[in-house]
Amino acid sequence: MRAAVFRKGSIVVDTLPDPVPEKGQVLARTLACGICGSDLHAAKHTHAFVDLAKRAGNRWSMDADKDVVFGHEFCCEVVDYGPETPTRLAPGTLVVSMPMTLSGETVQGIGYSNDIAGGFAQYMPLADRMVLPVPNGLPAAHATLTEPIAVGWHAVQHARLTPDDVPLVVGCGPVGLAVIAGLVVRDIHPIIAADYSPGRRALALKMGADIVIDPAEVSPYQAWGQAATPAGYDGSRYAQLFGLGPKMRPAVIFECVGVPGVIGQIMESAPASARIVVVGVCMETDRIEPFFGIVKQLNVQFVLAYTQQEFAESLHHIAEGKVDVTPLVTGTVGLADVSGAFADLANPERHAKVIVDPWA
Amino acid sequence: MRAAVFRKGSIVVDTLPDPVPEKGQVLARTLACGICGSDLHAAKHTHAFVDLAKRAGNRWSMDADKDVVFGHEFCCEVVDYGPETPTRLAPGTLVVSMPMTLSGETVQGIGYSNDIAGGFAQYMPLADRMVLPVPNGLPAAHATLTEPIAVGWHAVQHARLTPDDVPLVVGCGPVGLAVIAGLVVRDIHPIIAADYSPGRRALALKMGADIVIDPAEVSPYQAWGQAATPAGYDGSRYAQLFGLGPKMRPAVIFECVGVPGVIGQIMESAPASARIVVVGVCMETDRIEPFFGIVKQLNVQFVLAYTQQEFAESLHHIAEGKVDVTPLVTGTVGLADVSGAFADLANPERHAKVIVDPWA
Repeated sequence: MRAAVFRKGSIVVDTLPDPVPEKGQVLARTLACGICGSDLHAAKHTHAFVDLAKRAGNRWSMDADKDVVFGHEFCCEVVDYGPETPTRLAPGTLVVSMPMTLSGETVQGIGYSNDIAGGFAQYMPLADRMVLPVPNGLPAAHATLTEPIAVGWHAVQHARLTPDDVPLVVGCGPVGLAVIAGLVVRDIHPIIAADYSPGRRALALKMGADIVIDPAEVSPYQAWGQAATPAGYDGSRYAQLFGLGPKMRPAVIFECVGVPGVIGQIMESAPASARIVVVGVCMETDRIEPFFGIVKQLNVQFVLAYTQQEFAESLHHIAEGKVDVTPLVTGTVGLADVSGAFADLANPERHAKVIVDPWA
Repeated sequence: MRAAVFRKGSIVVDTLPDPVPEKGQVLARTLACGICGSDLHAAKHTHAFVDLAKRAGNRWSMDADKDVVFGHEFCCEVVDYGPETPTRLAPGTLVVSMPMTLSGETVQGIGYSNDIAGGFAQYMPLADRMVLPVPNGLPAAHATLTEPIAVGWHAVQHARLTPDDVPLVVGCGPVGLAVIAGLVVRDIHPIIAADYSPGRRALALKMGADIVIDPAEVSPYQAWGQAATPAGYDGSRYAQLFGLGPKMRPAVIFECVGVPGVIGQIMESAPASARIVVVGVCMETDRIEPFFGIVKQLNVQFVLAYTQQEFAESLHHIAEGKVDVTPLVTGTVGLADVSGAFADLANPERHAKVIVDPWA
């Protein structure tokens, strides 16, 4: 099969052996696979990416000096089954899966493995237990968005939301946009979203944000304050101490940037009692001033990925039209153009999500 | 009146004018006042203490170059009332109060103010609305512990505890000991407590810890794991992915040290899904690796102080014997010895809580 292979720091197209499905596995033909920000990070800072994963309990055991085929946001069609595996879904059925497969009772990640090619290859050995059929004739390029949409849905489900919350989404890349989609499903409004990029602010509005902010012009926290302050609110220490008058609506702030300094900046600027949900994946050492957390009694919830249930729910939210992923797909490339797409994705005005079609 | 005054970096005994109670105020005679770790910090790093408070929204507006009388953990007796103030409690009644008073509808903090002397002075103008009578003949030196015990109680109440939680208390100074006391009231066991000091570990046992750990000899997280792992637990990724077998008991880790590096160390060492409650007050910039938070989906809850209700509950827990504060009081000094006590408190083997008696 053909694949876009990450080899010694570059992405090259090469021919690899077709995977042979084991017992319990489905041979799946990759129809579409999104490029994730983590792929860009792994390509640019490969050794740091691998080292940090080791320190964090061997989350993945990628060898930075061996070939890797990235790709963990995929949609495939069923081609064949391994031995002694029930043929639950007919060949040709469109499926998605969480990016991991099973070899007996061994769980193997897909996307950062030297052993199993990810979705930038033409075939993958998926786990029979984990594939989900794509309903409602949803096209493959949209079904691939199940994975990033699930990241946002998981963050929203972990945020302990109440109907009174006023959310602020900091950063409107694919992660922030997925969080906005999740908030829309949960019907939590107004959704305030901040990004320096006009293109991303436009996407945030399309995904359902109610108010978008350019932090270069307006403080997102000031905008949040205007939206969250009830009529007759008395912010004096006296009123607060004795619980007089209406309360500020609660703040839930989603950190969707993932670079050093953002968590600290949010802690310094957040209103009292804010819940901060860290969805952006910062892989470097960061600095915070705990005192801001302390005096404002902030809560910081770090989140990662999603559960199987949240993944399945996300597929259905997309297929049933609760989440419209159309605005997110800003480009499609064949294997030969994966390398160029990695470079293009650095520009927030140009792209949100680029889909790789390994057969184009 | 006589007071131990913090003046130009030193503590000196001086005579100050007696406070005159305003409308709504009680003139209170200070019988006992505990020395808090924050007092030591304010004395040692005065300008940093003041600057950080300003950046955090003017929590207190102490001028570092003017006189201050510290002391916010006090027990007093009622002496007199301001004009037009109902004489709710008879003169001589023992009272405690949150460390703030009211001047009309203006809230004024007690303990870090240039305008109102704290508990290291012989008299204070307390707020009639905020004083609580000390029940059950509890002695003043024990009633002063209401304030630090309330700090621990608030942290425990903010920890979203479940009966299945296994708590780990990191640091057994007065804050950690108060957290242990709160956990005992809530009946959450086993309580694991870690401190390098043998004296503090002995106090932790007296306050109700079930297991005490010297981190120089045993990893507190390993001890936690032994206590929290149910029989038949299967930690494989396969078992975790498909929810097979019993689950680990949830971790709730109380950070009660308050120096840079501890939050980051806990984040690196904590088990997955741990809730970290930051009770220690770190006033310096700190470093964390967000990635550890992310891959383990940690929750960090910063807490401060207590509510009026938690303060009143803490007084009653002490007075009713649910919390025995006797082991915490390791010394009593008069005003002339406050300066020496500040120095002595640096040694964890020597002291937990030193009580100032301004009349001794």
